[in-house]
Amino acid sequence: MTDPAAARPDLIVTNALIVTADADFTVVPDGAVAVRDGRIAAIGPSAAIGRHAAEVVDAGGAILMPGLVNTHCHAADSLFRGLVEDLPLEPWLQTVWKAEGAILNRRTVRLGATLGLAELLLSGVTTVMDMFWFPEETARAARELGMRVATGGIFIDFPGVDHVSHDDRLRAARAFFAEFDGADDVFPTIMPHGAYTVGPDNLTSAKALAEERGALFCTHAAETRAEQADIETRYGHSVIRHLDHLGLLDERTVLAHCVWLDDAEIEILARTGATVSHNPVSNLKLASGIARVSDMLAAGVRVTVGTDGAISGNDLDMWMALRLAATLHRGATHRADAVSTRQALAMVTREGAAALGAADRIGALEVGKFADMILIDTDRVHATPMFDPMTHIVFSTAKSDVRDVFVAGQRVVRDGALTRVNIAETLGRVRALTPAIAGSIA
Amino acid sequence: MTDPAAARPDLIVTNALIVTADADFTVVPDGAVAVRDGRIAAIGPSAAIGRHAAEVVDAGGAILMPGLVNTHCHAADSLFRGLVEDLPLEPWLQTVWKAEGAILNRRTVRLGATLGLAELLLSGVTTVMDMFWFPEETARAARELGMRVATGGIFIDFPGVDHVSHDDRLRAARAFFAEFDGADDVFPTIMPHGAYTVGPDNLTSAKALAEERGALFCTHAAETRAEQADIETRYGHSVIRHLDHLGLLDERTVLAHCVWLDDAEIEILARTGATVSHNPVSNLKLASGIARVSDMLAAGVRVTVGTDGAISGNDLDMWMALRLAATLHRGATHRADAVSTRQALAMVTREGAAALGAADRIGALEVGKFADMILIDTDRVHATPMFDPMTHIVFSTAKSDVRDVFVAGQRVVRDGALTRVNIAETLGRVRALTPAIAGSIA
Repeated sequence: MTDPAAARPDLIVTNALIVTADADFTVVPDGAVAVRDGRIAAIGPSAAIGRHAAEVVDAGGAILMPGLVNTHCHAADSLFRGLVEDLPLEPWLQTVWKAEGAILNRRTVRLGATLGLAELLLSGVTTVMDMFWFPEETARAARELGMRVATGGIFIDFPGVDHVSHDDRLRAARAFFAEFDGADDVFPTIMPHGAYTVGPDNLTSAKALAEERGALFCTHAAETRAEQADIETRYGHSVIRHLDHLGLLDERTVLAHCVWLDDAEIEILARTGATVSHNPVSNLKLASGIARVSDMLAAGVRVTVGTDGAISGNDLDMWMALRLAATLHRGATHRADAVSTRQALAMVTREGAAALGAADRIGALEVGKFADMILIDTDRVHATPMFDPMTHIVFSTAKSDVRDVFVAGQRVVRDGALTRVNIAETLGRVRALTPAIAGSIA
Repeated sequence: MTDPAAARPDLIVTNALIVTADADFTVVPDGAVAVRDGRIAAIGPSAAIGRHAAEVVDAGGAILMPGLVNTHCHAADSLFRGLVEDLPLEPWLQTVWKAEGAILNRRTVRLGATLGLAELLLSGVTTVMDMFWFPEETARAARELGMRVATGGIFIDFPGVDHVSHDDRLRAARAFFAEFDGADDVFPTIMPHGAYTVGPDNLTSAKALAEERGALFCTHAAETRAEQADIETRYGHSVIRHLDHLGLLDERTVLAHCVWLDDAEIEILARTGATVSHNPVSNLKLASGIARVSDMLAAGVRVTVGTDGAISGNDLDMWMALRLAATLHRGATHRADAVSTRQALAMVTREGAAALGAADRIGALEVGKFADMILIDTDRVHATPMFDPMTHIVFSTAKSDVRDVFVAGQRVVRDGALTRVNIAETLGRVRALTPAIAGSIA
């Protein structure tokens, strides 16, 4: 016997300018999306979809598009926003580690993760790959806010703020996998810090655990010239060659930064299918350099976009990162076609999803995928006139234009405010901690 | 006989974190500013200034700083936002001129100027140097909104959308000066388009008129390699040398872009005191290149920041331009000290004012200067924690954080909304014109 209620969508978002970010970059003017059980059940003209649902949201002509995917962040480092300034990466990192060592524990990591993830979610990021101490706290914070996160076991060869040996790190990574086993909202990941802070044996045993569990593998790579020189001295070849020789590069690998690559290294990335997370805001601020994004795209490397942490970039603005991904390489190469509008849009949506092995579930508005969707208010001066919504998304949209955010059809941001977490309470706790943070490097 | 009311300020803004942007970069925590007759009468601790004024605004701990000075814009070109995409400057400009020719007249320039200037004012820009057809329409639009503008006679050797000969351009420039003679809110300027579109004789006669009237002189210069090659072919030397040989460079000259400079040209700019308006958003989008900002600063060249028009950069976001002015050159030179936080802050405030010959009146919060002030809401996730308000201004503030804007003590933006112009009506008129704009290049 058929239950007529079963066919009724839980949610319809109607009267929207839909930018699907699908493979054809389909745009549906005056479109609607119907959601059932967290997934997109139908997408099409508003008139065809109708309004017969448990909840109907009238977009009022706003842009509806997939939630953004941020492939590199350290959300909890938002506690140190603006603390360590005007240094290149290596001396900067020494100071950062001092501050982290003085301040961080499970409780403060949870607070910082909530702070950073809230900033991302409010700006329309629905999925983030995050690398930080006590990753289970970040995953719990993300779950509380209602967003997706790729994170997991951290590896670094010195004790770190968690004072853990490599064997204990492997055990912690297994415990993380156990806690979030089978979850839709947490993508299990293995996260060694980098080839300059984790030796070959520990990198390969970390990767073996990732393989055993079908997990993602993410590390910093080729961020600075100093790192490149360090690895050359220790191992006789460049960072990417080192990672390749160790067998760490494949389609489940995400390499953050990749600023310093020669042509052969770009070919290695293309051949192995490893993803690059391009972090232009951080790379500029820390004077690391300008990644060869147009060369990587031309070679067929998957390029995605990350904010990096607010400790380097000061905020977590994916829209600024997107704008730079689309324009910086035009300026740096003197080619107006260095990165196209569509390539840039794909980097923060479907390519980000593919990097997380989740192209079948997120990253585009298509029937069967999770209803991870954001509404962009276009009743703004800087959205007028508008000739092409994709151009508007890449070159004019600001984080403050994000009105509503849905994850699996659940409205987690409404009219620019979080629906599940009292952010004022979080900000108050961070402010109370601020004198101690300032004192941590004094 | 003393009138006690004469001593009472018209306005006090109190309970603010004041970033004065004065020569010492003075910050006043829990500070207040008293305003009388449009100028700052007193500045100091809230307790010392008190609340005895006709109007008291409690900032609630927000940052109070000078309004931003944008030294290069084409506000009315906002009508064409996103219309001409993915081209380098020269073919881009041919298409832009076609669209402008089809659409622009006095009425549409006024509409576009209101659109563009409104975007700037809402984001905290209180003074803009703007180059466009029918500059008196831009000046009138600025006056209606309540902001300051540096603009004036346009020069280009071909007829242009206004179909005017050079002699008529000189007459139009004189008429502009007559209309705005002695105004505080309009800085008279002579604005030839560039050395590649205006010949030597017309450039020098335009400059002679500027000198006669004590006016500013602004032109595009050294924006692209193609322009550099063109001028080399025609005149036997580079753009900056050409302008210098013609005697056009002095402290009243503002050169927009200056992407392509050799060491000797940087020395020419330093020697003559000409100002560079750095336009990073546009330079990246149009693939023009990356200006040598840190070299210019080291040589003592005055560097300021412009948004350029929304037709190239898609929006008029001075905060993004500021962030890039502070970070792009770190990335491009691999030096974390390429541009300091304070240098970047000065570029958009006091240096911008100096470029307009108005350092005695605007660009910093100091007694005697006009009360051109903006309130930055810091009750935001991305403003938490905050260790240094200047770091926050340069590296985290977004245009949407601008709550209130005062020009000469008059509140022209209140809680993020214009107080003098019905912007919804403007947006409606632009939307009605949009099909015609789209058709202009079809």
